[in-house]
Amino acid sequence: MRIADHANVWGTRHPIPRTPPISATASPRAVAKKLDGKLTAATIRKEVAAEIAKMVEAKGESSRPGLAVVIVGDRKDSQTYVRSKRRACDEVGIQSFGFELPGDCTQEELEEIVDELNSRNDVHGILVQLPLPDHIDSERLLDRIKLEKDVDGFHPLNIGRLCMSGRRPPLFIPCTPKGCVELLDRYGIEIEGKSAVVIGRSNIVGLPVAMLLMHRNATVTICHSRTIDTKEKVQEADIVIAACGRAQFVKAEWLKPGAVVIDVGINAVEDATKTKGYRLVGDVDYERAADVASYITPVPGGVGPMTIAMLLSNTLRACKQQNGDE
Amino acid sequence: MRIADHANVWGTRHPIPRTPPISATASPRAVAKKLDGKLTAATIRKEVAAEIAKMVEAKGESSRPGLAVVIVGDRKDSQTYVRSKRRACDEVGIQSFGFELPGDCTQEELEEIVDELNSRNDVHGILVQLPLPDHIDSERLLDRIKLEKDVDGFHPLNIGRLCMSGRRPPLFIPCTPKGCVELLDRYGIEIEGKSAVVIGRSNIVGLPVAMLLMHRNATVTICHSRTIDTKEKVQEADIVIAACGRAQFVKAEWLKPGAVVIDVGINAVEDATKTKGYRLVGDVDYERAADVASYITPVPGGVGPMTIAMLLSNTLRACKQQNGDE
Repeated sequence: MRIADHANVWGTRHPIPRTPPISATASPRAVAKKLDGKLTAATIRKEVAAEIAKMVEAKGESSRPGLAVVIVGDRKDSQTYVRSKRRACDEVGIQSFGFELPGDCTQEELEEIVDELNSRNDVHGILVQLPLPDHIDSERLLDRIKLEKDVDGFHPLNIGRLCMSGRRPPLFIPCTPKGCVELLDRYGIEIEGKSAVVIGRSNIVGLPVAMLLMHRNATVTICHSRTIDTKEKVQEADIVIAACGRAQFVKAEWLKPGAVVIDVGINAVEDATKTKGYRLVGDVDYERAADVASYITPVPGGVGPMTIAMLLSNTLRACKQQNGDE
Repeated sequence: MRIADHANVWGTRHPIPRTPPISATASPRAVAKKLDGKLTAATIRKEVAAEIAKMVEAKGESSRPGLAVVIVGDRKDSQTYVRSKRRACDEVGIQSFGFELPGDCTQEELEEIVDELNSRNDVHGILVQLPLPDHIDSERLLDRIKLEKDVDGFHPLNIGRLCMSGRRPPLFIPCTPKGCVELLDRYGIEIEGKSAVVIGRSNIVGLPVAMLLMHRNATVTICHSRTIDTKEKVQEADIVIAACGRAQFVKAEWLKPGAVVIDVGINAVEDATKTKGYRLVGDVDYERAADVASYITPVPGGVGPMTIAMLLSNTLRACKQQNGDE
């Protein structure tokens, strides 16, 4: 089955490209093609849905994947993300279980919930929506999630396996980095031998995406807030992954003509012309960068939907592993 | 205590430099100063020895650190390494326990030994000399070593913690990468804000040293066997870590004048003028690189002795942790 295969980051990939394979630097000065995360994610959701339907038909309702989402407090952005995740689960036939706790809940209450979810047979993946309130020890909580149900892939043991070469692969690859690489693969964009610059070194995006690209034989440079010459580094990159959380930080003139640009950022900037008073922009100045890049992800509609698609794919994989099908 | 502090890779370091602090690019076209690993390691061994002597005097013989070394088969190089480690232990007052097994021993025999060492109170660190024969599942064996005794720091959970930011730090940092950074620190060489190129992406050197430098705010590029333009990457680096295991791979003309060069390689090359018929060289063309670099490690006498010194320091730390002193 294709989706699950993607979790094996170590082997050679044989993607079925939707467009003819191109080199990351093949189309200098072209207007970039959009790396359409929304469309690609929809394709993946269909694949996941088809597999789940087949599985449930063959093995009965008890084989249906289940994802539990724990959310604490009333952060608007967290609620929006969780809603999207729930909707996506519904669409593909994953049962979702929501646990909404007030912002002043205790560590013990949260740990009890995680313990219960760890032991439930109908829950195959557990997701704790971050960030958690300051009085909660996030690390202790996340480490408590059973490794087999850590569909976010944030457990340090999972990250350790993700970073190391030639050892047991991680059970799950974090969804956003996996979504970035999946998008490159689905568009047939070559990674091997390319120079990649990752801007941002977070545990959940920058670090793991750098490792994934490295294992796929790219030469990776990790820039971050203390990098003095990010611009110069970006100028040499065939593939740029922007994950620094700074609105339109990467400028068009930083890009090598023909570079492939993946924009992980989602930043709200004031915009009086919008009814909400703001609009969402990425970490890249999309409009002008599109004149220089060969491929670029829009924001929204790029990496965001891919992240959710990968969560579904990880949950299906978790279910199959726990049901002994993989 | 200074040595143990070094294990905290996340905090700001305040080294006591033995030479005035310099910028990594401060002395263009100077003949490089030697980063004397042999001398620095001797200093560290003295520090470790002094601390052990004090500890044993205060708390009695039962508080003495112990290191168990397991070696399989009769590889000459492995035996040489193990001998050096044992000698170093003797020198600083660490009890060493050797377990030599024939090359045809079984996985079960090795696992029994690891289990026994895991439970012994006089053994605080366990080291399995690599490589192991092909019929042994090295990963399964290494993963069996109690995390608290994994003084090599190779457990994936340790590596995961080493790679992640702002989480619980690893219990132990792998000895060679730790030795590289320690050497830079002892010479007062600034890491923050520098461009670093690591050549090699192995689990035991390239990957972890890249992560250590990244956490110290260097901008790190990881080159490897599939990198097309290693020369060009090296030309921009303030700090070069050569860990690819290829004799004199890095040429003088690749180096930016004033670069700091750490050579992790130890390669035997034929040399009829030597009685053994070979001599040891690093991954860098030392003689000519020394005309361009500002600082450079010799081979032998650079990283090698530092690795052993870090093993002693990790073992002392393990002992203190297990005795509840840290």
